[in-house]
Amino acid sequence: MADSVVLLDLWVSLYAMRARIALAEKGIKYEAKEENLVNKEKSSLLLEMNPVHKMIPVLIHNGNPICESLNIVEYIDEVWNHKSPLLPSDPYQRSQARFWADYVDKKISAKSIWKNKGEEREKAKSEFIEALKILEGVLGDKPFFGGDTLGFLDVALLPFTSWFYALEIVAKFSVETETPKLNEWAKRCREKESVSNSIPDPQKVSDFILPLIQKMGLA
Amino acid sequence: MADSVVLLDLWVSLYAMRARIALAEKGIKYEAKEENLVNKEKSSLLLEMNPVHKMIPVLIHNGNPICESLNIVEYIDEVWNHKSPLLPSDPYQRSQARFWADYVDKKISAKSIWKNKGEEREKAKSEFIEALKILEGVLGDKPFFGGDTLGFLDVALLPFTSWFYALEIVAKFSVETETPKLNEWAKRCREKESVSNSIPDPQKVSDFILPLIQKMGLA
Repeated sequence: MADSVVLLDLWVSLYAMRARIALAEKGIKYEAKEENLVNKEKSSLLLEMNPVHKMIPVLIHNGNPICESLNIVEYIDEVWNHKSPLLPSDPYQRSQARFWADYVDKKISAKSIWKNKGEEREKAKSEFIEALKILEGVLGDKPFFGGDTLGFLDVALLPFTSWFYALEIVAKFSVETETPKLNEWAKRCREKESVSNSIPDPQKVSDFILPLIQKMGLA
Repeated sequence: MADSVVLLDLWVSLYAMRARIALAEKGIKYEAKEENLVNKEKSSLLLEMNPVHKMIPVLIHNGNPICESLNIVEYIDEVWNHKSPLLPSDPYQRSQARFWADYVDKKISAKSIWKNKGEEREKAKSEFIEALKILEGVLGDKPFFGGDTLGFLDVALLPFTSWFYALEIVAKFSVETETPKLNEWAKRCREKESVSNSIPDPQKVSDFILPLIQKMGLA
């Protein structure tokens, strides 16, 4: 029997994008079920599959739910280990990839920029840029964080590149000016179909997000 | 050449305890270097080995630093895989252990109780007890979260049991009354030397923490 792979998804979600990139890298066919979280309408399937956090993404593999985006990416890497390894095989290198993916979760926040105003937003922007610079240092002269191929940290960070344009408009800064090598990395990744087919165009994100921010009085 | 294993440690740190339990379960000899974080004096070794977060625990294995407690536990499990596996071998079971360890990190906070006062402390206490009850449900009738043996989630949660007594006094509640099965689990784990030698006695934690809380005007 063929595997059943379902992703409880939302096109604009940074965390759902991680699952989509990992599945695409592995060449796994899946059914994406779009949730409507903007209107706070959560499907009964989502509530059943992730009763603890009630959040997307959820990967449902042969009926078994896996929640939390980095956990999903590790699961995908372990189950479909026939191609495109995302985590290195060396334990120390694995620990470093996990450390930096966790760093992204702790330090790179789109919400801290767009949900705040004034001084708070400026502070969030500074921290965001500082974290991007540190990550640019981690990238160094490698084509990808994973080395010659896309790895775990690439998958963790890439979704944010689809939000950069919207955040640049909201908080008035330029990723290209602040972190030119990271900007090149993002372009390089987008040349891969597994990435370009999995994360939305920055203009589309911006067209969707900016009116919402305006409506919330946060523009 | 024998492995060099150093732990940048603090006896009362919930997160350092995780590393100590994992090392003890694997039977690894290591040098513990006690940091003095209470007086905000961080050693130059700590600043060198964890320049990003500047926090303990840090495991230094043959000169290579690994940071962040759950990351350290996974590293220990991968490197010393000759005995006492902490994560299950099945990818789905692994994803569930990682999910719940992450849940502990997100929902079980000692600081949210003792650093707050009044209504905020009451709210933190309720959330703490609710999370313990959910974890008690996850334990079910198994002797350990890992099944018949200590596992990743046991290691993630166990350190908090050494703080229960102090937190019970601070916030006036009883873990035994609220979650009797979890209380039994904690006793069962303490019967293992790898645990009892790695986490301090609750009375010792309380004797240390309560005067500090008093001094900060939070008693």
